[in-house]
Amino acid sequence: MKAEIIAVGTELLLGQIVNTNAQFLSQGLAELGIDVYFQTVVGDNAGRLQEAIKIARGRADLILFTGGLGPTQDDLTKDALADELGRRLVLHEPSMAKIEALFASRGAHMVESNRRQALMIEGSHPLDNETGLAVGNALTVGQTHYMLLPGPPREMKPMFEGPAKVWLRSLMGDEKPLYSRLLRFAGIGESNLEAALLDLIDKQTDPTIAPYAKEGEVALRISTKASNEAEALIRIDATVEAISQRVGQFIYAQDDIAIEEAVVRLLRSSMRTLASAESCSGGLLAELITSVPGSSSEFLGGVVTYTNKMKNQLLGIPLSQLEGPGAPGAISESTAAMMAERVQALASSDFGVSLTGVAGPSESEGKAVGLVYLGIAQLGKPTEVHELKLMGNRSTIRLRAVKAALYRLWQALK
Amino acid sequence: MKAEIIAVGTELLLGQIVNTNAQFLSQGLAELGIDVYFQTVVGDNAGRLQEAIKIARGRADLILFTGGLGPTQDDLTKDALADELGRRLVLHEPSMAKIEALFASRGAHMVESNRRQALMIEGSHPLDNETGLAVGNALTVGQTHYMLLPGPPREMKPMFEGPAKVWLRSLMGDEKPLYSRLLRFAGIGESNLEAALLDLIDKQTDPTIAPYAKEGEVALRISTKASNEAEALIRIDATVEAISQRVGQFIYAQDDIAIEEAVVRLLRSSMRTLASAESCSGGLLAELITSVPGSSSEFLGGVVTYTNKMKNQLLGIPLSQLEGPGAPGAISESTAAMMAERVQALASSDFGVSLTGVAGPSESEGKAVGLVYLGIAQLGKPTEVHELKLMGNRSTIRLRAVKAALYRLWQALK
Repeated sequence: MKAEIIAVGTELLLGQIVNTNAQFLSQGLAELGIDVYFQTVVGDNAGRLQEAIKIARGRADLILFTGGLGPTQDDLTKDALADELGRRLVLHEPSMAKIEALFASRGAHMVESNRRQALMIEGSHPLDNETGLAVGNALTVGQTHYMLLPGPPREMKPMFEGPAKVWLRSLMGDEKPLYSRLLRFAGIGESNLEAALLDLIDKQTDPTIAPYAKEGEVALRISTKASNEAEALIRIDATVEAISQRVGQFIYAQDDIAIEEAVVRLLRSSMRTLASAESCSGGLLAELITSVPGSSSEFLGGVVTYTNKMKNQLLGIPLSQLEGPGAPGAISESTAAMMAERVQALASSDFGVSLTGVAGPSESEGKAVGLVYLGIAQLGKPTEVHELKLMGNRSTIRLRAVKAALYRLWQALK
Repeated sequence: MKAEIIAVGTELLLGQIVNTNAQFLSQGLAELGIDVYFQTVVGDNAGRLQEAIKIARGRADLILFTGGLGPTQDDLTKDALADELGRRLVLHEPSMAKIEALFASRGAHMVESNRRQALMIEGSHPLDNETGLAVGNALTVGQTHYMLLPGPPREMKPMFEGPAKVWLRSLMGDEKPLYSRLLRFAGIGESNLEAALLDLIDKQTDPTIAPYAKEGEVALRISTKASNEAEALIRIDATVEAISQRVGQFIYAQDDIAIEEAVVRLLRSSMRTLASAESCSGGLLAELITSVPGSSSEFLGGVVTYTNKMKNQLLGIPLSQLEGPGAPGAISESTAAMMAERVQALASSDFGVSLTGVAGPSESEGKAVGLVYLGIAQLGKPTEVHELKLMGNRSTIRLRAVKAALYRLWQALK
């Protein structure tokens, strides 16, 4: 099945927002085994939207719309498509009841335009909106399938994951479903990973191996079409095994979780705790770890010691270690070790992790931009320090340093 | 002038990456006064790309392509357009010399495919690539203008901002150029801002007022077409004045900078320093401030005290304040004040800022998700504490709490 995604909204054409819906839907459709051939963005203009519909109908079997289902006069996706198909709009009673109940519960006056959100194209299948008011629509006319989804991602995503996927699977009938698994990597860059797997990726037919770049990390999606899950598992397992033989030590999850979440999970399952001491990364390590819900049981706290005085005051690192002729300096292996050890002792945690280095844009202590030391202190074990030489701008260096620290923590916890 | 943006790349159709290029270019074109009517995404497939070109030619005067200028066989934008226009590809000597010099300097062997990056469509104007190897192309055939830009944002953006904009301005000839100014807001949400300015936004014809949502902040772009800058300034100033009369206290910059950068600039110009004590925000405040290059002179350091024990050990807050029957607790006005005061004293900084609250997903100390206290301690002034009741998920609450703290700091510094 060939699909086209049409995102409707003048704010997209003005560059006021990024079309993340197109990515989300493309990924979701790929996982279902539906090929997306075109993505189109058109403004809140009935004529141009109908023009886009005519073009899409000529080259796709399935057209997904996002946006333009709201209450205002600018929201014209349903009207434009109904007009194009020569159909009327009819009221979807359950959606109308929901809208009325909401206004009543708020004691608010409902204006006529709110009714628009409960309209459907005649003959279409309603798609429940769990997190909003506008009902989605799915219908087949002739050889073409149409699906109308709301624009706000917090409404569109649950609708797609729920009722929309059920409808799409029913369309696919006898086609074999796609099964896939995500392998997430840390401690290895995209180009090194691709180089290690080049022949596997080139030779791939089934399962396919697709690389994804994720916020400072790399992932591979292994996909295959199969009649059933058992058959898919055998093939995916074999491919994962072939990949693992080469780069297995860098796979931290066969699931879509970030490395910080993998670290928090391991801390939790082993009932161990962590504290952090950061310099060049400025709190990013603490921020990523605490972005994992519930991490407060595992992450006890951290310090961001940007200045030598703070390294001395908060961590008790002697100033003679940090400055003056012959001192190792703040950016050194021994300072990284001390930072990790002191914060671990201070917090009485099982692990202490530290980062000190030069994020740029200019060098520091005469040391080059990108030089970072990463320390891991562990109760009852010798402290390890790793030297990193990172490429990129300030924010990339910070992110890569933090991801490297998380990878080393994950290794220590395994 | 009507424009269409065609992004070329199968990775976009698979949802492996987000089409941020379309947003960047749409915004840039809007600022030049060029209307974007359609955005299209097509895969690395010559036939479908040529089909998209034919459609775009029928509805746009200017077609901008991004992607597909690289060295591999998948990179076929230039070939497909040349073929469609019945033109040859010719070598751009300066680009070729640059590629050869780069390979020579690295002692690397240049493969034939690298030459492809120096090819241009016959009769086109080269667009220099400051940050990469693939040369851009701009040409006019009949009534249609074409521009080919590379796909990687770090190459595309400088090319667009530099040589591409020069070429686009030359196309516009007598058309009056667009002048615009960005107003950045903090301490006010998008809906409240729009409500306060509703009649101004509705009545707008010239200058126009367009709202933008930026990472936890709101911005307005004021734009007008004028014969010269002086004329534009008069009109923009009058609109800014009208907006300021209503919501002036929330405008922290008439320039595209984030609130953390505005705070660092004010700290720098007043030669004052800052330290932070965070609980619920987990280091995000420190991270945002230190993301500003050179902030190490103004930001001395911070603590992330997730547990009561860390609040006690690092900040010396009595445990009797934090826990036990009748204690105010960690999430309280008085704890926020103490955290700000203690970290300011510890760092000997001019300002101390603190955040303690419930980011969710579950409540804490019996206090509701979204309740956050924000403290600002200032040498020689009474400490201020603000209570926030924030909506959203964990990451939204954290971001909004941090942006609110930055706004209050900005106010204290003004």
